Amino acid sequence: MENGTDSPAEGTEGVESQVRQIATRARDAARALAAADSDAKISALRAAATAIRGNAAPLLDANAKDLAYAREKGLTAAMTDRLLLDQGRIEAMAAGLEQVAELPDPVGDIMAEWERPNGLRIARVRVPLGVIGIIYESRPNVTADAGSLCLKAGNAAILRGGSESLHSSTVIADCLRDGLRQANLPVDAVQLVPTRDRAAVGAMLRMADLIDIIVPRGGKSLIERVMAESRIPVIAHLEGNCHIYVHEGADPAMARDVTLNAKMRRPGVCGAAESLLVDQAAANSQLPGIVDVLSEAGCEVRGDDRARAIDPRVVPATEQDWDTEYLDAIISVKIVDGLPDAIDHINRHGSHHTDSIVTRDQSAADTFLQRIDSSIVLHNASTQFADGGEFGMGAEIGISTGKLHARGPVGAEQLTSFKYVVRGDGQVRP
Amino acid sequence: MENGTDSPAEGTEGVESQVRQIATRARDAARALAAADSDAKISALRAAATAIRGNAAPLLDANAKDLAYAREKGLTAAMTDRLLLDQGRIEAMAAGLEQVAELPDPVGDIMAEWERPNGLRIARVRVPLGVIGIIYESRPNVTADAGSLCLKAGNAAILRGGSESLHSSTVIADCLRDGLRQANLPVDAVQLVPTRDRAAVGAMLRMADLIDIIVPRGGKSLIERVMAESRIPVIAHLEGNCHIYVHEGADPAMARDVTLNAKMRRPGVCGAAESLLVDQAAANSQLPGIVDVLSEAGCEVRGDDRARAIDPRVVPATEQDWDTEYLDAIISVKIVDGLPDAIDHINRHGSHHTDSIVTRDQSAADTFLQRIDSSIVLHNASTQFADGGEFGMGAEIGISTGKLHARGPVGAEQLTSFKYVVRGDGQVRP
Repeated sequence: MENGTDSPAEGTEGVESQVRQIATRARDAARALAAADSDAKISALRAAATAIRGNAAPLLDANAKDLAYAREKGLTAAMTDRLLLDQGRIEAMAAGLEQVAELPDPVGDIMAEWERPNGLRIARVRVPLGVIGIIYESRPNVTADAGSLCLKAGNAAILRGGSESLHSSTVIADCLRDGLRQANLPVDAVQLVPTRDRAAVGAMLRMADLIDIIVPRGGKSLIERVMAESRIPVIAHLEGNCHIYVHEGADPAMARDVTLNAKMRRPGVCGAAESLLVDQAAANSQLPGIVDVLSEAGCEVRGDDRARAIDPRVVPATEQDWDTEYLDAIISVKIVDGLPDAIDHINRHGSHHTDSIVTRDQSAADTFLQRIDSSIVLHNASTQFADGGEFGMGAEIGISTGKLHARGPVGAEQLTSFKYVVRGDGQVRP
Repeated sequence: MENGTDSPAEGTEGVESQVRQIATRARDAARALAAADSDAKISALRAAATAIRGNAAPLLDANAKDLAYAREKGLTAAMTDRLLLDQGRIEAMAAGLEQVAELPDPVGDIMAEWERPNGLRIARVRVPLGVIGIIYESRPNVTADAGSLCLKAGNAAILRGGSESLHSSTVIADCLRDGLRQANLPVDAVQLVPTRDRAAVGAMLRMADLIDIIVPRGGKSLIERVMAESRIPVIAHLEGNCHIYVHEGADPAMARDVTLNAKMRRPGVCGAAESLLVDQAAANSQLPGIVDVLSEAGCEVRGDDRARAIDPRVVPATEQDWDTEYLDAIISVKIVDGLPDAIDHINRHGSHHTDSIVTRDQSAADTFLQRIDSSIVLHNASTQFADGGEFGMGAEIGISTGKLHARGPVGAEQLTSFKYVVRGDGQVRP
């Protein structure tokens, strides 16, 4: 479907060579950007925000073309809404760029510093990662979000957006490049892959000599493809099968409110709860009240036999439900035999994203927080707090469930590496 | 050469299933070990040291079998020496275990902690990585070094040593398991792959569902194979093409001493200098003195035309020399036109491992330290300081040139991940 001929490149070989040229320019730009001072990066981001506001009219025109293309392709209403830009969304994008500009610059930050007995002074200093490839789906604002976070952390970004948002993303990327130009920074620090040919994604994933890291943003099938094909390290999460565990020591009102929020605030986000575990000892007193508020909010509740015996509104769950990320107004409920059973279930069926315990029992909470092998573990709070903004990071490029490098919300600081800087006065090793 | 029949497994399928069983046990052991307290891990490491000392006789017997096998296979003298154990090396191994026991426990360390306006308290807490696969060549002491560092950081280790060291490594791994048993920790936190079949390596590299990270230790061909085949993130360096740059502002005696040490202290280590860059402005006065001490030490000096014009002892270098890691008493010399030329050469031809500038000019040093894109950059010190022990980390499992996660020396702290622990009192997201 996506191998249209909008691109100047002809065939896979053409695309490969086009992507290689982009990546080579990105590598050179990354070298220059790594040495840029904080003020220049701030200027570039502010100028980009001004450019976005100043180009609202051409941006809306471009977006209209994208929407027409989407209708032609028969995109769902949800996808079309994600694609849509209006004055409010354009202003939000510009304001987002200004917020990223104000974030602390992670580059050059001294993470640790010590002196050795021989007088060598060793510092661990943050440096940019280099070239970051971002592969995403229909939302054009990712172009601004991801491009600006990469720029803030001194990285060059290669943006490969969804084919439906190509016209909108091109205008947005041009505004970012305009900001770079005005700040005398290399414009190729932000580049959009200007083709709808899907071969461009495969080409990026193989370019380990030029691209340091891949960040995919989108649905599970996109992430799966990227993880399977990439020869470059990927920072991402495949899914968010998040749990709320109502311990026997939970406050009933809190259990009800936290569960409702965790599931229904926005059922389609990765931090939405998909499964509810309730202690046998608390199930009779707590489950009906929770099912009340979920049902009222329009949520389907699927459960095991024990849950159904307590509340007849619960419809049967199958084994598969424990492993399912609904991203919808559906939740699965399982009655567990206490803390160890709950921990075992979550570590086995969860996706190591975000899980929460509700309890007044501090010792049970501590055990849960320690034993659950997830990026984010919470006590008495909604799983929907899994978000860089809510963590105080200002902005995020996504949430990582990997154990290496970045884990949890991925902000500007997580888009850096470090190096050791060692200062001596002639030391040689004995 | 290595598909011997010492193994109980028959054929690739048997090896695959054998490795899967080992990895499954490792995964379970890792869960238990992640929750172990520091004292138990210290006890296990001390008991393992005692077991190594107590089993010196069977260990020497096992080593004799390995040496006989090595002679049969016609191993080089250098490889046989790496394989050899004697009382001194056994004692060093036991002492190494005791040193790792005394290192600070990274697990549970609170890396950062902050409170949000809504009262949520967020902590970034170190946790073990999980299951680490170590693939190495002939030195049996890697079994003790790598196994103990993994254990210290709360990880389960799957050790796949060289086929020549199988008997020695088995005894050493049994001592580590004995230590775990005595401390009531899961013995399967340390497992040796008990087969010489090379298919075991391929099986490990595909087991991304059970193994979190692969650490290869050995020659370039081993690392290349692992990097190309692995579906699991790899922490390693491919090579150490390290540079000494003698800036025009260098103190001549320091330039000479640092270069000699960087090349000849141990020419075969990854931190050994392979290339010397000398500023044109300093070449006439400095190069002959440096060539003096290198030649005296038995080092061959290969250089470009400008270096040869200054010192006739310099033999011709080809373009390929700039990209070559000799690991031998050979060094390449290039005359450069100043700081930007030197930085460009190193970023282009180096391996992002360790590079050093010698100069009295602080501003030139700062530019070098900032612009060189390597894991370790030094000013006025030998590249041979690229070592976890010299950095004060106590022990290391290797040096990483990757930009993600661990970079530079990889010690116990670098074998951890982290998670976010969030404590609330019923917060829901608006």
